[in-house]
Amino acid sequence: MKLHQQVIQVKTSGKCLHKITSQVNDVVINSGINTGLCTVFILHTSASLIIQENADPDVLADLSSFFSKLVSESADYLHSAEGVDDMPSHIRSVLTSTSENIIIHQGRLWLGTWQGLYLWEHRMRSHLRQIAIHIQGE
Amino acid sequence: MKLHQQVIQVKTSGKCLHKITSQVNDVVINSGINTGLCTVFILHTSASLIIQENADPDVLADLSSFFSKLVSESADYLHSAEGVDDMPSHIRSVLTSTSENIIIHQGRLWLGTWQGLYLWEHRMRSHLRQIAIHIQGE
Amino acid sequence: MKLHQQVIQVKTSGKCLHKITSQVNDVVINSGINTGLCTVFILHTSASLIIQENADPDVLADLSSFFSKLVSESADYLHSAEGVDDMPSHIRSVLTSTSENIIIHQGRLWLGTWQGLYLWEHRMRSHLRQIAIHIQGE
Repeated sequence: MKLHQQVIQVKTSGKCLHKITSQVNDVVINSGINTGLCTVFILHTSASLIIQENADPDVLADLSSFFSKLVSESADYLHSAEGVDDMPSHIRSVLTSTSENIIIHQGRLWLGTWQGLYLWEHRMRSHLRQIAIHIQGE
Repeated sequence: MKLHQQVIQVKTSGKCLHKITSQVNDVVINSGINTGLCTVFILHTSASLIIQENADPDVLADLSSFFSKLVSESADYLHSAEGVDDMPSHIRSVLTSTSENIIIHQGRLWLGTWQGLYLWEHRMRSHLRQIAIHIQGE
Repeated sequence: MKLHQQVIQVKTSGKCLHKITSQVNDVVINSGINTGLCTVFILHTSASLIIQENADPDVLADLSSFFSKLVSESADYLHSAEGVDDMPSHIRSVLTSTSENIIIHQGRLWLGTWQGLYLWEHRMRSHLRQIAIHIQGE
């Protein structure tokens, strides 16, 4: 049984979905692990992870627009000192995922044809986001 | 340490919650793994997984009705070429789970008395859904 | 490869977010596992887990208030025999997480500086909640 841990960094540019599938796949390939589990964990509470359609960019635009309406930036939040977009970011993080667990099969992330892994930046400003990766297998 | 990987298929019949607890439990039993972790991962972005009450079917009806109201099918989505139910399905998938990780204890899925594992089909038509299972343990 | 399984109990006091980071960290330390994965799984469907900001209590208050508005207790649910707060609790559980998977690094839960692990009690009355923990690593 082999274990592999690594951090990858993603520079975001404001509210945006960043596809990180191939960056994470590269970590899997470098680990030399053929069969196992890859845990991807974002070390922040105002950005999160989702697995979604990797083909039509309109899907990402519709997702962004749905979440902007669902989680208002003009609501009366108690937690407001860090900016109007901070508390909504925490809520959006709770409604999506802090980690994703993807099976490794034949040395690659085992995803469906249309699935991609995304980092979702919920803040308006650019951030350097840290993603911890843990791989366990053979 | 043993590893076991397998795909199970579920034929859905339109928007519906399908209980798959015993199907996944059978895979665990067949793996011969007594103590470990079972990762269940749906290879699609318009169907998803949840763990919910396994007793009163009204809970499933109320869940369906809540999500139908929360994620409108009559909103003006950019991504509309695949049908009015496609983009809402992607959003519902993001709000629920692409994978569930269930502990294996004494050779069985370790669930609470009232917990069941469900595949949630979000599309109106019937689909043959692929679920990848990875089991790691002893 | 070592495996460690344990149950922890948390006594809740009505709708509330209970920080359980250090309780789970203690289980990790006692397991003697230095590098691995910790799966935390709540054995209930009307309480759930989230990873959120551990600093400003206003964040927790805003989260609670957002979810109370999003999931109404005065809606006409079919499943109502167990109280007006039961069906909303199931929905809140689906929108958050039944389990969280946290990487273990240098013998501790690998969390960001501002991240804490919380049990979210969604029912109005106090409950004794069971959380199963599985640790796998070296």
